Amino acid sequence: MNKNVLVGLSGGPSVAINASLAGVIKAATASRRMGTVYGARNGIKGVMSEDIVDLTPYADETNIALLMQTPAMALGSCRCKLSSRDYEHIVEVMRRYQIGYFFYIGGNDSMDTVAKLNRYCKTNKIEIKVVGIPKTIDNDLPVTDHTPGYGSAAKYLYHTMTEIIADSTIYPIPNVVIVEIMGRDSGWLTLAAGLPRFLGKDAPDIIAIPEVAFDEDEFIARINKLFKQKKTVICAVSEGIRDASGEYIGNDAKSGAVDTFGHAYLSGVGKYLEGLVARKVGCKVRSIEVNIMQRCASHLASKCDIDEAFTIGQAAIDAALSGVTGAMMTFRRVTDSPYKVIIETTDVKNVACKAKDVPECWHDLEDERIYSEISSYILPLIGGKLNQICDSSGLPMYIDIK
Amino acid sequence: MNKNVLVGLSGGPSVAINASLAGVIKAATASRRMGTVYGARNGIKGVMSEDIVDLTPYADETNIALLMQTPAMALGSCRCKLSSRDYEHIVEVMRRYQIGYFFYIGGNDSMDTVAKLNRYCKTNKIEIKVVGIPKTIDNDLPVTDHTPGYGSAAKYLYHTMTEIIADSTIYPIPNVVIVEIMGRDSGWLTLAAGLPRFLGKDAPDIIAIPEVAFDEDEFIARINKLFKQKKTVICAVSEGIRDASGEYIGNDAKSGAVDTFGHAYLSGVGKYLEGLVARKVGCKVRSIEVNIMQRCASHLASKCDIDEAFTIGQAAIDAALSGVTGAMMTFRRVTDSPYKVIIETTDVKNVACKAKDVPECWHDLEDERIYSEISSYILPLIGGKLNQICDSSGLPMYIDIK
Repeated sequence: MNKNVLVGLSGGPSVAINASLAGVIKAATASRRMGTVYGARNGIKGVMSEDIVDLTPYADETNIALLMQTPAMALGSCRCKLSSRDYEHIVEVMRRYQIGYFFYIGGNDSMDTVAKLNRYCKTNKIEIKVVGIPKTIDNDLPVTDHTPGYGSAAKYLYHTMTEIIADSTIYPIPNVVIVEIMGRDSGWLTLAAGLPRFLGKDAPDIIAIPEVAFDEDEFIARINKLFKQKKTVICAVSEGIRDASGEYIGNDAKSGAVDTFGHAYLSGVGKYLEGLVARKVGCKVRSIEVNIMQRCASHLASKCDIDEAFTIGQAAIDAALSGVTGAMMTFRRVTDSPYKVIIETTDVKNVACKAKDVPECWHDLEDERIYSEISSYILPLIGGKLNQICDSSGLPMYIDIK
Repeated sequence: MNKNVLVGLSGGPSVAINASLAGVIKAATASRRMGTVYGARNGIKGVMSEDIVDLTPYADETNIALLMQTPAMALGSCRCKLSSRDYEHIVEVMRRYQIGYFFYIGGNDSMDTVAKLNRYCKTNKIEIKVVGIPKTIDNDLPVTDHTPGYGSAAKYLYHTMTEIIADSTIYPIPNVVIVEIMGRDSGWLTLAAGLPRFLGKDAPDIIAIPEVAFDEDEFIARINKLFKQKKTVICAVSEGIRDASGEYIGNDAKSGAVDTFGHAYLSGVGKYLEGLVARKVGCKVRSIEVNIMQRCASHLASKCDIDEAFTIGQAAIDAALSGVTGAMMTFRRVTDSPYKVIIETTDVKNVACKAKDVPECWHDLEDERIYSEISSYILPLIGGKLNQICDSSGLPMYIDIK
């Protein structure tokens, strides 16, 4: 008898993760070598609590299409570190459901679960193939050229930054706009917000990523210098920028310090820098947190991203059927133009709990010579427009897995 | 000889204001009874400083199409109150440019300028037709059924709120999400963010508009009550909500007060309520400011909004040619379904410095019986998808008026 399939989602949401889930459902139900396709609610937590749902009813064309255009995570998510006793329990549940294949869609923490579960199975001679499918808007997984979810977030940031630039330049008075972008440890998303500049516009003027030490005095000096040439200074800033000692910018402020007006800060680096500019430059200043919109704006999803997320989900099924286990699916880019990628696998240990920074050769974002290289990397990932199925109000329809 | 035309933009930006400008340029250049079409940069300020540009080169089909899809304000904006001496100077400049028709696109403050300029012309027997064209995402202008710019902002808020709901419900833990929406005095935009609920979803759970007194204790009590039925509580809140005494919520905090952790608040009501929920409910809580994205997201513009903005701009030309002056163009809705509006005019004094609140019969947003009425009002305004002209990266192209 064919072994059954179990799939779970983990970590933070994105616009593309459900497309990978759709790829898994589609390929697994189509395969004559796999049994029932189950989904665990709230990732590995749902395995432990046996909150498991039969996904077979969602394998038809319409449901697959709806799932592909639904943002966030149709099976819910979790963030949890497991103990060795948890793995014992997980495998016991999987045995009861006659699971032969487990797919886990997530980032580097989720890949740690994949690695440990696979080791547990190997040690205990349990025949379950365990395969990770990459997902994170942060684009910070090693080995793979990029991660599903990044392209759509990058597209959102590129379009939104362009609109913010247009909006911010209408008044003939000096003003600073600070756009705070996700990325606690890596600047990939902020690079996408820099695309207008890399593609020829004169903004954003200042682009700050966590990989490069941030100096507050230098930041203020650059704004003052820019004001000699232009009225509006726009900054794209990663939430995780740090000073030379590795301390997060605005960290002190967040823990209760007050500024010269007696105000303290409740939130992130954008608000902190807003206060800094107000005090040190004294001009009009606004901070904008693009917040969770950058990861859930399915109305602006990249077709390339969604298609790839689906394809890599399907490919995971083929990989598992061919015997792969303890691995994560990856993209290897063959050429930028025409854009071509090959799907491969890597030992999940190369990914688990590891991160990929923006490479050093891209750190000096004042150096125009690197702009075409960065654009050539990002642009293919944001390409294409989706034909979304909409309701009578024009809203893309979402799926609800009961 | 035909008199020339002058047009200016004023107040805050929107996605639709350039479409009204396009309508003015298109109809004025097409008319055989009008001369050169000039644009004043930064509104009335540009008239005073003679920063005036010939718009004739932008009247061809491609430029009109690009102008219609460009967000913000292609001629820049201003916010200024004028003195009576200013009007003398303005009219002198207009005489020099042989202006016979002046069109001002803006909100209720801009209509004050229209009213005063018209009075000055009448008193001094100066033959300039002065016509206002409505524009504000706030939708708070009297007489007109709605204002250009509102439909696109409403569409953005409806789609974004739906995405935020999907994103916020993935973890199986109690959490509150507070979405802060523009609207210092009126709740029209927040109503649009409420559309998912009005159309059958169970969120946003709490919808708070400036027209209805906000009680902090009641707010916390409602969250606690909602937690008995569900894990995620989503709130759509106007930036301008006030308590029963008319004081803005969070106002104290903004002026330097600190919370029980010694933190004070730098920004708006969303952050304030985030702190309040953290202290009083003690669950996970996030505030989201949709910020200027709600007024500049041209990638999600409403076709109805853009088309209407263009048409009302064209209609202003016809009105001026037929002798109308000291008036603002308005929409009168004939039917919701099929949606039909008629363009009319109103004495600008009916609009200048006045505001239109959300009507009282829509204040109790817990009363489901009003949901279909609110939806029927908003839905036609957000209808339709634009075919935007995009560059090779898929980004809608903007115009740059030199």
